Amino acid sequence: MDPYVIQMQDHGSLPSVLDVHVNVAGRSSVLGKVKSRKARWSVRPSDMSNKTFNPIRAIVDNMKVKPNPNKTMIALSIGDPTVFGNLPTDPEVTQAMKDALDSGKFNGYVPSIGYLSSREEVASYYHCPEAPLEAKDVILTSGCSQAIELCLAVLANPGQNILVPRPGFSLYRTLAESMGIEVKLYNLLPEKNWEIDLKQLESLIDEKTVCLIVNNPSNPCGSVFSRRHLQKILAVAARQCVPILADEIYGDMVFSDSKFEPLATLSSKVPILSCGGLAKRWLVPGWRMGWILIHDRRDIFGNEIRDGLTKLSQRILGPCTLVQGALKSILCRTPRVFYHNTLSFLKSNADLCYGALAAIPGLRPIHPSGAMYLMVGIEMEHFPEFENDVEFTEQLVAEQSVHCLPATSRSLI
Amino acid sequence: MDPYVIQMQDHGSLPSVLDVHVNVAGRSSVLGKVKSRKARWSVRPSDMSNKTFNPIRAIVDNMKVKPNPNKTMIALSIGDPTVFGNLPTDPEVTQAMKDALDSGKFNGYVPSIGYLSSREEVASYYHCPEAPLEAKDVILTSGCSQAIELCLAVLANPGQNILVPRPGFSLYRTLAESMGIEVKLYNLLPEKNWEIDLKQLESLIDEKTVCLIVNNPSNPCGSVFSRRHLQKILAVAARQCVPILADEIYGDMVFSDSKFEPLATLSSKVPILSCGGLAKRWLVPGWRMGWILIHDRRDIFGNEIRDGLTKLSQRILGPCTLVQGALKSILCRTPRVFYHNTLSFLKSNADLCYGALAAIPGLRPIHPSGAMYLMVGIEMEHFPEFENDVEFTEQLVAEQSVHCLPATSRSLI
Ligand SMILES: Cc1ncc(COP(=O)(O)O)c(C=O)c1O
Ligand SMILES: Cc1ncc(COP(=O)(O)O)c(C=O)c1O
Repeated sequence: MDPYVIQMQDHGSLPSVLDVHVNVAGRSSVLGKVKSRKARWSVRPSDMSNKTFNPIRAIVDNMKVKPNPNKTMIALSIGDPTVFGNLPTDPEVTQAMKDALDSGKFNGYVPSIGYLSSREEVASYYHCPEAPLEAKDVILTSGCSQAIELCLAVLANPGQNILVPRPGFSLYRTLAESMGIEVKLYNLLPEKNWEIDLKQLESLIDEKTVCLIVNNPSNPCGSVFSRRHLQKILAVAARQCVPILADEIYGDMVFSDSKFEPLATLSSKVPILSCGGLAKRWLVPGWRMGWILIHDRRDIFGNEIRDGLTKLSQRILGPCTLVQGALKSILCRTPRVFYHNTLSFLKSNADLCYGALAAIPGLRPIHPSGAMYLMVGIEMEHFPEFENDVEFTEQLVAEQSVHCLPATSRSLI
Repeated sequence: MDPYVIQMQDHGSLPSVLDVHVNVAGRSSVLGKVKSRKARWSVRPSDMSNKTFNPIRAIVDNMKVKPNPNKTMIALSIGDPTVFGNLPTDPEVTQAMKDALDSGKFNGYVPSIGYLSSREEVASYYHCPEAPLEAKDVILTSGCSQAIELCLAVLANPGQNILVPRPGFSLYRTLAESMGIEVKLYNLLPEKNWEIDLKQLESLIDEKTVCLIVNNPSNPCGSVFSRRHLQKILAVAARQCVPILADEIYGDMVFSDSKFEPLATLSSKVPILSCGGLAKRWLVPGWRMGWILIHDRRDIFGNEIRDGLTKLSQRILGPCTLVQGALKSILCRTPRVFYHNTLSFLKSNADLCYGALAAIPGLRPIHPSGAMYLMVGIEMEHFPEFENDVEFTEQLVAEQSVHCLPATSRSLI
């Protein structure tokens, strides 16, 4: 089956109020639990683990429906390109790993931010005149997930807040809330190809706002921002002096009619931490190779944020050294045709899904321009038998054995 | 050169007071920094990153001495068995990775606690009748470091405290302090082969003590606790109702005259999280494969701690899937002679160092029984020209180009 995630969205359900946000900061975590000394056991999970919450899991695990036994399951709910075996990585990528293994040189401890040579490779791969990069601007991480974790951990204290897209990738919230960072959700507008509602975004910013997360290309929208829209986002950040975490893990994964512009190439003013990795473009998410690219031409992050990231990386050390050792070959030797084939495959799946869905009255798919996702608006008046998108997707599983994710899991809880 | 860490210790410098501990909890991190809205940039690193501190780095980076240019450097300060190329991993281990690569089956996302099949392998490898293990008791992590991080994160809230050996592995403190967890140091007694000062240990426990870290075999002491001593430690934990984090990364790495007893085999009462990994015994620290073994026969951790660990593992996902895929072969196919050879090599190095050091007046090496470390007591009256162990090791670098770590870095700051 196709590695394509379809999310069903109840259009009516995006509230238009401007100040929706979730307050998760609290003092209880500091005062701690007082345990009386005692001849009895009482081992309780920490506040942090209690606050660590994956909204997708929460919704999906509660969907207690069984697929229709007479129909084969069509799983469209997983953002993993590898599960169905139809999108293997390139042989050069596998060969690079074997070479790293055979060399025997990549088994030991390395600096927690990664081998200097591997960071040099990433820097020169993503370097461009408008946004220059050197090894010192690169931190290798255990997946893009750890890249995001380190960025949030260095920028925000408990009680401060970050701006997160809705709908968006759920990990931002999971990480932030586990650290006691407040999440403020800014809206993406389906009718404008998922551009940011910039007014609403700006209205959320207050004196405790320490980071704006911009995810482009977008999970779960499949949208790709235009240069003009990116410039407007940067203008807000510059005016409000809010640094940006650019989640660009789907960078370069755009269809031929769109262009991906790395955010940092469009501003020399706004300090940007760009997060990426091998997971999506090289189709090896399990290898857990991610990175942070530090763009700070005005020295606003300065040494302090760089040092902070380095110190935080020492807590558990970085990604597998073999993958680090293979990085040069992976970046330099993977043939262009591999990227091209992946994209045309994804595009043809996107077209197929879009066409089929657009023909159904009451469904309003939005054609994606990149990444691996497609969102579908549901005009609920066409489906009076369903309360909301969760029910809709439940029935899709029960009747048709087709598994999509309700967009509620990405936006409202 | 030999992968052997020697630590120089000024015996006189271990204070004998009972209540030495470091208060790192504080409220400032919760109240957050108030940033006024503003037309100016001010991006500051978080309290957490400011509190993330590696004592070894702090001391070593401040040692501004140059090695003697006429002598080749002898680096005895690194706990990495791979750097000098004389302790390669076994060919079966490398082959297991190639097989995992070639299968093409281990590139995708997996459950954040690891593949079920890989967890089954670890469980059956470490299973024994006195301490049974199933897949559900195993969590795979990004190195033993992440195992320790998850255990501390699930057990402790800011302001609570944990008990940490002195001298000990510095990461316990680095992690705890970064999370606002208070560290109380209990003493290891050089004159008793580095056994724990149990009285002092017990005196440190208060109503906010949530975890006792026991590191056996020990970094940096190279000591291996006897069954009797382990039973006494367990008795303290049972009496005081404090769960144990057993850092057993050097498990089974003991010389023939000692025996390693996994802590969990000696108690069915005390709940134990045992942390381990491939780093040391299989000589591949860079691969970042670790695990937590949950021993909880009295159901004291219960589902809550298990769920908490699972939830925390979802923050950045676990270790590289290729290494997970190779785990079965690594555990089952590595020949016994490999382990044997590693240990006799380490033992002969230990004997060599011990013999040479014992012959020097004023130095009192303590013969290690396992792991990769040797501690040396310095009778400071023999060396009136030096203030302390830091100066001593500095001069050792300057005069002899021999690099050891001052034990101060493991104990006093
Ligand atoms: C937008 C986005 N960012 C980050 C990640 C995490 O990437 P990684 O698997 O490298 O941690 C994902 C994974 O689905 C994603 O969709
Ligand atoms: C006692 C101890 N625990 C844990 C670790 C960390 O192991 P890993 O490299 O698997 O994170 C080390 C590494 O030196 C160690 O000495």
